[in-house]
Amino acid sequence: MNTINGGVTAPEGFFATGVACGLKKDGKKDLAIVCSEDRAAVAGVFTTNRVKGHSLQLTMEHMKSGYANAIVINSGNANACVGEQGYADALEITAITSGLLECTPQDILVGSTGVIGKRLDMDAVRPGIEALVSGMDPDGGHDAAEAIMTSDTIYKEIAIELELQDTKVVIGGMAKGSGMIHPNMATMIGVITTDANISKKLLDKALKDAVKSTFNRISVDGDTSVCDMVVIFANGMADNAGVINEGEDYELFLKGLEHVCAYLAKLIAKDGEGATKLIDVVIEGAGNPDDAYKAANAVAKSPLVKTTIFGEDANWGRIFTAVGYSGAEFDPNYTDIYIGDVLVCKGGCAVAFDEGLVGELLKKSEVRLLVRLNKGVYSDHMWTCDFSFDYVKINSSYRS
Amino acid sequence: MNTINGGVTAPEGFFATGVACGLKKDGKKDLAIVCSEDRAAVAGVFTTNRVKGHSLQLTMEHMKSGYANAIVINSGNANACVGEQGYADALEITAITSGLLECTPQDILVGSTGVIGKRLDMDAVRPGIEALVSGMDPDGGHDAAEAIMTSDTIYKEIAIELELQDTKVVIGGMAKGSGMIHPNMATMIGVITTDANISKKLLDKALKDAVKSTFNRISVDGDTSVCDMVVIFANGMADNAGVINEGEDYELFLKGLEHVCAYLAKLIAKDGEGATKLIDVVIEGAGNPDDAYKAANAVAKSPLVKTTIFGEDANWGRIFTAVGYSGAEFDPNYTDIYIGDVLVCKGGCAVAFDEGLVGELLKKSEVRLLVRLNKGVYSDHMWTCDFSFDYVKINSSYRS
Repeated sequence: MNTINGGVTAPEGFFATGVACGLKKDGKKDLAIVCSEDRAAVAGVFTTNRVKGHSLQLTMEHMKSGYANAIVINSGNANACVGEQGYADALEITAITSGLLECTPQDILVGSTGVIGKRLDMDAVRPGIEALVSGMDPDGGHDAAEAIMTSDTIYKEIAIELELQDTKVVIGGMAKGSGMIHPNMATMIGVITTDANISKKLLDKALKDAVKSTFNRISVDGDTSVCDMVVIFANGMADNAGVINEGEDYELFLKGLEHVCAYLAKLIAKDGEGATKLIDVVIEGAGNPDDAYKAANAVAKSPLVKTTIFGEDANWGRIFTAVGYSGAEFDPNYTDIYIGDVLVCKGGCAVAFDEGLVGELLKKSEVRLLVRLNKGVYSDHMWTCDFSFDYVKINSSYRS
Repeated sequence: MNTINGGVTAPEGFFATGVACGLKKDGKKDLAIVCSEDRAAVAGVFTTNRVKGHSLQLTMEHMKSGYANAIVINSGNANACVGEQGYADALEITAITSGLLECTPQDILVGSTGVIGKRLDMDAVRPGIEALVSGMDPDGGHDAAEAIMTSDTIYKEIAIELELQDTKVVIGGMAKGSGMIHPNMATMIGVITTDANISKKLLDKALKDAVKSTFNRISVDGDTSVCDMVVIFANGMADNAGVINEGEDYELFLKGLEHVCAYLAKLIAKDGEGATKLIDVVIEGAGNPDDAYKAANAVAKSPLVKTTIFGEDANWGRIFTAVGYSGAEFDPNYTDIYIGDVLVCKGGCAVAFDEGLVGELLKKSEVRLLVRLNKGVYSDHMWTCDFSFDYVKINSSYRS
């Protein structure tokens, strides 16, 4: 597996671009398309929030066939909570796009991200879609990645190639997401493309598996959003024999997909609103997988842990406290805590440690917190980021 | 029921004081005692965190008899996660105090609050206890309330009198708590005193009931701490006939106790670290009590809601989003949201509202957010506060 240049247009037969149609007040790109030359197998993972945006609802319906041609994504507006008009607007986007692409509306997916409760400005979107379709380019992945950004400070894309069934196969991806990221698809949108030939069923399984260990392992502030998704298109244009059964070939494809998703997920966690550090919260020795997850999740969500790391303060009591209220079963008297590789708490009890050394570790842009519960053999982890002044600044004035 | 001056020493037969023994670096008061003239019936509610401080563990044991004379509380150090020495230190505090008060060590309770993982400086505490006992005063409640403060910016005390069984009975209380407050006794300590004559069993029941609707309805940042508690002493010195059965008299006492607890709880929420506003999150029309609680809790914990309110921004989409991921069962299409008394979302859909009016409401020091799920008849609420720059400032440098 090698990383190569590009993003969603790196695989064979994909076109993309991004334009500024006027949804963002600052004139930045706000409308993107990713399109496959051939109708592609598709799979998706969607928010578990009970409130769901109109674009997302339509996309969930359109994905039922398991095939699609393209996805149109706008930033600057979530197209959520505006009533029937929101659904009608999403439908119109698929109608216009399919007309231009000469396919059926059911083969067009829609994603929206931004503020909730305001109607999408369709007068801006309509000509925007025309510009998108006429501007689509086999090297346009980067422009698309830029157009889906909201409070992101960096665009997020990656592509890899791997040898599958004696054929070179490429997987590309882009994502947006920064604040509100949390397990089960918070304010994030991910689009993955591949020219691999893989069955609809296995594509679906691979995406669900890959998301579980990647996008579902990032947490920025514990909030999950109403209109976010990860979708994958597989157009088969690499002409590999075809992955139709679980086995070695499937595992190889899954490994590649996980690599792409993990890269994007880490970038999202690192680009948390106002974040200055990426934090990897690792739990080892839990009695069962669920307890490992609960403990990692509680530490990663704790505002007190996140502000402590922002302050580069070795206040491990807050890590221990979060594990304590996580709901995980464990005995505090057998718990060890490490900051980086430095033991700071052994058997639930403070130990003397080199404050200078830990201070140096906390100054780095990536910090690892490890909690060993010493109860069983299960482990889990969660990527998160610190909580800074800028987080408050960005989020106290987002809507205006 | 009338509010009267004072706090824990307002009821008959209670003495208290606070001294600076040197645990706090800034020379502020850091050691408090509350003592009953007669051995009193006691009840307590303790943190549900699996990690428990040494002082709290000892107090839980000492309360098993249902009676005690006094409680000694230090701030500046949590006496937690320091191994067996921490338990021994708590034991020594009860030994010294009981020696001076001429009672048994088992009748002394201990509370500690502050940083985790550092041994209590017993060389400071020992003479401190002597100063406490010799300085105890029937008007010393205020000094005690001051000595238990950590990052609190205001001291918290209240006293009320009520007519119970044709007798004047007084209930007093003090509390500390600011950051880390959350249902089930986060970093907070509350001490309630009363001269009412009430059975041990009913005292216990009344405290549990009162805590449920008051201290368990405040949330500052979702973290719960390892050494926090609410305890009540009832010394019977008002000489009322005795509350020994549930019924009218019990309800009257409970109402008084709830008033005291609610007052202190609201003060804690309002005094959240860096808080500029008290937020009352109200859920109505839930299908069951658990769903009402879950929804209120999710909104009150959401950092995005809290920063929005800090920014005085009517971004109700974040409230809706939080209800959506709360786990509560509801239909978004039947949900109404109000900021203050202004409807901003009806049937899950944005409605036009007077931005100026809502802006005025958001400028106030108390903001009410109401979500009507329109599914059933159950309601709940949670007090919380906004999330400001100062929250990050205070919490990024707490230990140092």
